[in-house]
Amino acid sequence: MTKNILLSHGGGGEETQHLIKELFFKHFDNDILLRMEDAAALTMESTQIAFTTDSFTVSPLFFKGGNIGKLSIAGTVNDLSMMGAKPRYLTCSFMIEEGFSYEKLEEIVISMRDEMAKTGVKIVAGDTKVVPRGSVDGLFITTTGIGEIIYQGISAHHIAQGDVIIVSHEVGNHGACILATREELELESELQTDCASLWAPVEALIHAGVKLHALRDATRGGLSAVLNEWAETSHVCIEVEEVKIPVAQEVKGVCELLGFEPYEFANEGTMVIALPKEEAQKALEVLKGFQETAQSTIIGDVSSRFMDKVILHTPWESERFLEPPKGELLPRIC
Amino acid sequence: MTKNILLSHGGGGEETQHLIKELFFKHFDNDILLRMEDAAALTMESTQIAFTTDSFTVSPLFFKGGNIGKLSIAGTVNDLSMMGAKPRYLTCSFMIEEGFSYEKLEEIVISMRDEMAKTGVKIVAGDTKVVPRGSVDGLFITTTGIGEIIYQGISAHHIAQGDVIIVSHEVGNHGACILATREELELESELQTDCASLWAPVEALIHAGVKLHALRDATRGGLSAVLNEWAETSHVCIEVEEVKIPVAQEVKGVCELLGFEPYEFANEGTMVIALPKEEAQKALEVLKGFQETAQSTIIGDVSSRFMDKVILHTPWESERFLEPPKGELLPRIC
Repeated sequence: MTKNILLSHGGGGEETQHLIKELFFKHFDNDILLRMEDAAALTMESTQIAFTTDSFTVSPLFFKGGNIGKLSIAGTVNDLSMMGAKPRYLTCSFMIEEGFSYEKLEEIVISMRDEMAKTGVKIVAGDTKVVPRGSVDGLFITTTGIGEIIYQGISAHHIAQGDVIIVSHEVGNHGACILATREELELESELQTDCASLWAPVEALIHAGVKLHALRDATRGGLSAVLNEWAETSHVCIEVEEVKIPVAQEVKGVCELLGFEPYEFANEGTMVIALPKEEAQKALEVLKGFQETAQSTIIGDVSSRFMDKVILHTPWESERFLEPPKGELLPRIC
Repeated sequence: MTKNILLSHGGGGEETQHLIKELFFKHFDNDILLRMEDAAALTMESTQIAFTTDSFTVSPLFFKGGNIGKLSIAGTVNDLSMMGAKPRYLTCSFMIEEGFSYEKLEEIVISMRDEMAKTGVKIVAGDTKVVPRGSVDGLFITTTGIGEIIYQGISAHHIAQGDVIIVSHEVGNHGACILATREELELESELQTDCASLWAPVEALIHAGVKLHALRDATRGGLSAVLNEWAETSHVCIEVEEVKIPVAQEVKGVCELLGFEPYEFANEGTMVIALPKEEAQKALEVLKGFQETAQSTIIGDVSSRFMDKVILHTPWESERFLEPPKGELLPRIC
């Protein structure tokens, strides 16, 4: 018999206790979580901490290269990493539609466990709500993380003229993958999400002594949103060479077919880095040592030509502003 | 013209920035939030911290004495307070259905701001997802909090024989209020949620030097869930006098009408306290100084008669086990 999630699994009574113990405790197993207090009591190694939250509502829940569970861990791990903070502890909240498959939920929970193992981060507190059929579409997950800041001063405010801009991976894979799955496009090749935890390469950059100005994972709104926010926040001009921005052939295909720009597509394991030009070579050497950032490349630099703006140099030697994304873009991409 | 939330408000582009700045930043205004980094960078005063999360899916969103916003702040503030932790920082995630009223959202945000002012806690990071009509029913909020532990060792594991059990308020008001609103019961009186932040009385107990064994706010599953979990976790017997448990007349009415037990109804500003008998008088004096805990009263004590069990002594001098709640209870109560 197929087991499904029932309303009683979220009621706070006996069935909730069973679900927590047999599913969440089993896979997220750690001493702090198992104490089952109202809040987890933690001893941090530093008083300098980073704190971030993200909700995941992606549709479909499963896609090539990942699922909502993997996404919910990597997403929050990455937000901490982008602040130079070693990810330490997570909380996790599940909002589940009555009738959701127990087997699928367990598959998602196992993906979360496996993704956490890559950085050693632990879920130490959680919440589960089950809502009646029709009140939520399937499953939403919210993860919140705290980390210890081991490199101070990374900030969207610290980008300076003379910095170069590095992107760590080809852009748009996650957005294109979700869209292709939804539209049931038959792609010739194996386009999959870039979803990955980026703490390992970030930690390596820090340990190698690379000076970092700003880091940002290019999620909703893609590369275009990050660059525009940076240009505005640091009051500089960012100039990028279109030909240098890595975009997979399949992503270009999806974009042409459906009328999107790859620079606006969400990524889930791709970061943008701003650092002083003289640090770039060392940074690239470090990044190329990790599978998830092996494609790292310099795509542009920081000037003062048009303050608060991003200029895209095209292959035909013309140039245009890369405008910040607007409009509906893609709902439920992450 | 009535403004509504559009999908583009959650896309990560220009409209998202507008929503964040004009609504969330306006009301949640603080320096850390306004830096708009991937994660908030915080300096804690202690390395001993408490960390907790809660998702709120209550239906209806507005009810007598509160709304989902007030609930989402008080709930997380209380989870931290129950660990002896001074609530410091929150993250907040909104999952909003396309078409949701901007005016209502603002009313909810203002309630959050007002509730935060009572303890001085601050929202320092957030996330907003807008999902297409039908993917979520109205609005869900997830809040996650961190606090500094100023009193160590409060735990569901630390209840000992000879402890007394105090309840800080009449029980069942929140559950009865939500249910009455849903069923459109015409109640003669002003039954409203007990929703309240409990940090002020908890802090006063700590400052008065009261020795505390366990604290728990009796949310989903109510008083019954807390007592049963405690009895099991600390491997003791908890005996309570039914006649001493404060229950409002209107709550009794709702329970009789609809076939519920007030001990299983959720509360949102009512805590249960276990402490050594000799501390009880001092604790009650402190608690009676706060409006939200003015009704505090001793309802029972801890023995070894039936380990892991809760015994309810009835007014007719009989006794029965108060069983842990099970079954569907009430979905979407918090």
